[in-house]
Amino acid sequence: MATVNDNYLKLKAGYLFPEIARRVNAFIEANPDAKVIRLGIGDVTEPLPEACRDAMIKAVEDMGDRNSFKGYGPEQGYAWLREKIAANDFQARGCDIDASEIFISDGSKCDCGNILDIFGDDNIIAVTDPVYPVYVDTNVMAGHTGDINEKGEYEGLVYLPVTAENNFTAEIPTQKVDLIYLCFPNNPTGATATKEHLQAWVDYARANGSIIFFDAAYEAFITDPSLPHSIYEIEGAKECAIEFRSFSKNAGFTGTRCALTVVPKNLIGKAKDGSNVELWKLWNRRQSTKFNGVSYIVQRGAEAVYSEEGKAQTRALIDFYMENAKIIREKLTEAGLAVYGGENAPYVWVKTPAGLTSWDFFDKLLQSCNVVGTPGSGFGAAGEGYFRISAFNSRDNVNEAMRRILDKFK
Amino acid sequence: MATVNDNYLKLKAGYLFPEIARRVNAFIEANPDAKVIRLGIGDVTEPLPEACRDAMIKAVEDMGDRNSFKGYGPEQGYAWLREKIAANDFQARGCDIDASEIFISDGSKCDCGNILDIFGDDNIIAVTDPVYPVYVDTNVMAGHTGDINEKGEYEGLVYLPVTAENNFTAEIPTQKVDLIYLCFPNNPTGATATKEHLQAWVDYARANGSIIFFDAAYEAFITDPSLPHSIYEIEGAKECAIEFRSFSKNAGFTGTRCALTVVPKNLIGKAKDGSNVELWKLWNRRQSTKFNGVSYIVQRGAEAVYSEEGKAQTRALIDFYMENAKIIREKLTEAGLAVYGGENAPYVWVKTPAGLTSWDFFDKLLQSCNVVGTPGSGFGAAGEGYFRISAFNSRDNVNEAMRRILDKFK
Repeated sequence: MATVNDNYLKLKAGYLFPEIARRVNAFIEANPDAKVIRLGIGDVTEPLPEACRDAMIKAVEDMGDRNSFKGYGPEQGYAWLREKIAANDFQARGCDIDASEIFISDGSKCDCGNILDIFGDDNIIAVTDPVYPVYVDTNVMAGHTGDINEKGEYEGLVYLPVTAENNFTAEIPTQKVDLIYLCFPNNPTGATATKEHLQAWVDYARANGSIIFFDAAYEAFITDPSLPHSIYEIEGAKECAIEFRSFSKNAGFTGTRCALTVVPKNLIGKAKDGSNVELWKLWNRRQSTKFNGVSYIVQRGAEAVYSEEGKAQTRALIDFYMENAKIIREKLTEAGLAVYGGENAPYVWVKTPAGLTSWDFFDKLLQSCNVVGTPGSGFGAAGEGYFRISAFNSRDNVNEAMRRILDKFK
Repeated sequence: MATVNDNYLKLKAGYLFPEIARRVNAFIEANPDAKVIRLGIGDVTEPLPEACRDAMIKAVEDMGDRNSFKGYGPEQGYAWLREKIAANDFQARGCDIDASEIFISDGSKCDCGNILDIFGDDNIIAVTDPVYPVYVDTNVMAGHTGDINEKGEYEGLVYLPVTAENNFTAEIPTQKVDLIYLCFPNNPTGATATKEHLQAWVDYARANGSIIFFDAAYEAFITDPSLPHSIYEIEGAKECAIEFRSFSKNAGFTGTRCALTVVPKNLIGKAKDGSNVELWKLWNRRQSTKFNGVSYIVQRGAEAVYSEEGKAQTRALIDFYMENAKIIREKLTEAGLAVYGGENAPYVWVKTPAGLTSWDFFDKLLQSCNVVGTPGSGFGAAGEGYFRISAFNSRDNVNEAMRRILDKFK
């Protein structure tokens, strides 16, 4: 009899976003005339840059001619894309990253989950709390945790709380952990990491032989020039960090699908016999065997992000969302709420007023303002009492949502 | 210290296609004027159907307007694509498959590997020999095997030999196995399965609580109307089979990337406590957590395969490759070689002459005819003494390759 992976049965049934959808749908059913504005999910709303569209149309046309037709591409991605990424996103910022260390994929969500394939099952794993749920759930599925407790924490994981009390900056652990997930600018809190903070993590990782999984999906939203965009701006990071990046949020690729993962060649893990194994070789083998590359058409679209037009259009998109974030910060502050983030990230993290729980505030905002956000407790126990507002929406919707909130809360 | 997945270290270092590339490159270096014709890898060569290109250009344009822009799509794929697949590929052939049981992905290679995520590590796994190497390698990587022996077999896997002696039809095992990989029309042998043969597998699987992984990537190449295209044409298959399909070979999507996996809702596996678990729920959770859907643009391209124009253009593509296969069969037979397959599949499986090993024949063909094929032994121990010739090339190249072979071998 075929058996199943029992670890899946440990997963919490009531996932965050389905529960939000359930409450919103119930509200709409009861209030069919309400104009609900959704500032919940982190999905982009504005058109794809013209440079990317033009490049993809040309790529589709390439597919119509036998001489320019593309069959299977390199599983790691085309050299012309990897080289532009290496030059623009890394070398231009002083990071010594080579094109061969960049692996193109169809999404950071996939890579964040799949990366566990190449690691042992005996690693001690640390996540911040609150955290992007995919980091946790993929570890549960891989059997790296025990059961869930009543706080929503899985046994065996090391949770590092980030709250207003510690300025949303996780303390470097005193215990030994092997794999560490860091995300800056942070989803969901919108917090950033200084070079000094990342240096402390890199020093810890090098001292303990740990690997940092650095999720930089929101790096394009950094406005403060002193903040690092890549962990490889930190000395020693090439010896201890894997970085995940995406075209989803900077160029609006959430529905177009393209991302990348950087695995430096000198990164080492330990085999059971104590010998050193190059992680680049394992990831290369994993991707060659279980992946077949990203669509040629989509890779051409991603390449156009690095053209002059593409850079200008992508910059304009980011500026647009960051102006939304600024409006949200200002208006919520005016409404008397304590707000965090939103200055170098498209997320504003709000302290719920009057000791409301995250879900209480969710219901209140939905009922009284017809505005949907995301309860902070959905991202982890330490997110209780917080609430995430996303800047991904039209200006009109953002203005109208803020007008309603000011009206009710001021 | 972070540890690695030691199972990766069991993988055979000298993988088939890199070794082919090494020998071909060495030959070209020594013979720079030789016009090498490659009939090795199973990659398509002809342009993408116009209907697919038109649909993708329209989809790119959709992305340029805020009102038709698409962000994150359903992780399972868009309903409009899943419904067309259900109607055309399954219901039209009498298979009771619902759109909700179809999961769109970026490749069958990915799905064949990822499907193991939802199964237990204690299953006994059967593969045919020769076999598509991804089935074996992904099981090695998941820790489902022991070490490799000198024949190239991994301890713990059950190998079912398919050779001319058994008409390339694996015998139903007498022992109990839990997961069974079947591929028809077969890669690499080009063999097909009758309804009776598949019924015997389904009966075995139902009697033993096994799950069949049915790889139907080449179903479009079936010309014999008596042969099943889907395992769900077989009574009881919905209770024991997962089917993998792809747009790669029928519509030329190897570089465009779109595939699908069917997980029927009544398919059951066992949890450790003996309770039944629906595999659909586990796969749905796996895909929701570790995957973010296929590009909207690519899904629109795949949808166009089911338009009237798309059907006609796809049919013409397949007919073109099958005419190649016919020429290859005829000419190799004329050259005195024993050939199999190529009548309902784009692969011709050749018995090497005069007791040559697969690699001997590879070298001979390369040296004397400047033609590249794939050594059968690269697909498994029982592939020794066989050789795969692919029908994926231009007519001119196929004709020229056959002319050279006839010249040397007749």
